[in-house]
Amino acid sequence: MRTTWHISICALGGCTRHLNTVSLVDLIRRIQDGQGEFLLFALTPPRLATDRERAQEIADATVARLRPLDPDGLILYDVDDESERNPAERPFPFMPTMDPADYLADHLGAWATPVVVYRAVGKYTPEDVRSWLSAQDPTRVMTVLVGAASQTARARTSLADAQALRREANPTLAPGGVAIPERHSRRDDEHLRLLAKQDAGCRFFVTQVVYDLNAAKNLVSDYHYECEARRIAPAPLVFTFSVCGSMKTLDFLRWLGVDVPRWIENDLEHAADPLEASYQQALATAGELMAYCRTLGVPFGINVESVSIRQVEIEASVRLAQQLRTQLRR
Amino acid sequence: MRTTWHISICALGGCTRHLNTVSLVDLIRRIQDGQGEFLLFALTPPRLATDRERAQEIADATVARLRPLDPDGLILYDVDDESERNPAERPFPFMPTMDPADYLADHLGAWATPVVVYRAVGKYTPEDVRSWLSAQDPTRVMTVLVGAASQTARARTSLADAQALRREANPTLAPGGVAIPERHSRRDDEHLRLLAKQDAGCRFFVTQVVYDLNAAKNLVSDYHYECEARRIAPAPLVFTFSVCGSMKTLDFLRWLGVDVPRWIENDLEHAADPLEASYQQALATAGELMAYCRTLGVPFGINVESVSIRQVEIEASVRLAQQLRTQLRR
Repeated sequence: MRTTWHISICALGGCTRHLNTVSLVDLIRRIQDGQGEFLLFALTPPRLATDRERAQEIADATVARLRPLDPDGLILYDVDDESERNPAERPFPFMPTMDPADYLADHLGAWATPVVVYRAVGKYTPEDVRSWLSAQDPTRVMTVLVGAASQTARARTSLADAQALRREANPTLAPGGVAIPERHSRRDDEHLRLLAKQDAGCRFFVTQVVYDLNAAKNLVSDYHYECEARRIAPAPLVFTFSVCGSMKTLDFLRWLGVDVPRWIENDLEHAADPLEASYQQALATAGELMAYCRTLGVPFGINVESVSIRQVEIEASVRLAQQLRTQLRR
Repeated sequence: MRTTWHISICALGGCTRHLNTVSLVDLIRRIQDGQGEFLLFALTPPRLATDRERAQEIADATVARLRPLDPDGLILYDVDDESERNPAERPFPFMPTMDPADYLADHLGAWATPVVVYRAVGKYTPEDVRSWLSAQDPTRVMTVLVGAASQTARARTSLADAQALRREANPTLAPGGVAIPERHSRRDDEHLRLLAKQDAGCRFFVTQVVYDLNAAKNLVSDYHYECEARRIAPAPLVFTFSVCGSMKTLDFLRWLGVDVPRWIENDLEHAADPLEASYQQALATAGELMAYCRTLGVPFGINVESVSIRQVEIEASVRLAQQLRTQLRR
């Protein structure tokens, strides 16, 4: 599944990818084939209020920072105000961000590998969803369609409708879905939700940041054995990791619904260097989960996201991704 | 903390301990000093109906099997009918077993290292508890006093009364208590219970079989930071591991209140060799927990118990203990 596609990209000039020793994995083909062992890096687009010039500076700086990392693809999140889901006070104020589709189209043209664009479909009308889907190049873009944050939230388009629109408007565009181990801890049926999404066309699944290794293993295990019972090939599960430099960021992750085990919270709270402690924890958790997936034969990808705008945290995320990529078997 | 005590024991004849390359750790002194890195092996006494001759055969076979292992001490459980705690049907019928104190006194005279005798104090009158406690040699015996299985159970002696009797009747007899990570998962206060027991004299704590690594780490972490805040030295936490060769044994562990993560249950259920799978899982969980305790500086011991009477499971338990002892730093 190695590809020489990067040669043609490099031929366009200005690309330093050929300096990397690991061949470019064609992410989309790999996912379509149900294969894992790939690395993604996830970004949140700049704030909505960012002017065009500044947005381009941010994009250029991001591309420059990520090029040496050589991830197999990018993820662009679609940030939604989830306050309808959680009545508790939001630890950070909600800041609307640019539409990830616009950010990709207007500012990330120089990026060489596939981009997974999230769509919080409840934000958009069915017409908007359809027109965006039809305009995407399925050799360059994938999408993760995300339903409304809560059942009571007013959704302009439901997840089921968006999935149907994807099948009609751009059937070769590879869609992914979200996988939530925390929901599995509470309801024991997340593996069945994944299989229902797979029936609706999903080819991969992406988790929130994983802190609760046990919950993630439970989901992997139930998904694996259910796929086996139904004689269905498992789709790659993409596990997200990040670093967390402060208790406030941890509170925010909790607010978003991430289960953070007590011992991890304690260790971060008492660490002389919480960022380094969280880096080491993410590394250990990812290592365990990769080993577990390989034992079962469940394909997986790794996604590293930067949840903060602090320079030192962004750099630690990139360092985490660099370290994790050395552990992927490609 | 190494000792040459075994030389005098060996001088009594018939002992093969001097063949072992690792020096005998004086378990009681080590525990009194708040030091860990020791190995215990836990036994359930034979059934109450066993005749004297057969009980001696069982004891002799056990001693012969455990001698090459050279554990730093034995644990003898005091089996109680816990059906008052759990209204669900017991997967195995309750079989009353010999009083561990009697089994030790009558059949295990040949055992060379300290023995931790459990006392389910609710079963005994205060006079029985007092007279047993006063008769014990504190250089040879330790005890774990266990309260009634449920608050509604009629207890002849309460745990608090038994602790007070121990202080009066035999103040140098090192007492331990039980530590239940599962209770910490539900109530978040097990670390405070441990500290209260420590106030009452406890010098070590022993868990049930650990399957839920996360729950155990949460307890270790909260206990560690609370000790630090109170400037109290932590007492050794003894983590119990075992092998489990069948789903029925797993059901029984669950019935006893052990949290078995879903992925472990799935793996055992689908394993070609569940016993080997559970051996590997116990090894992995113990390794993680030992590393975590060392990072925090919490002293720990390892206890391996055999929960089954099947020969192959007993042998696998001994093999597990042998493997884990190589990982202890003594």
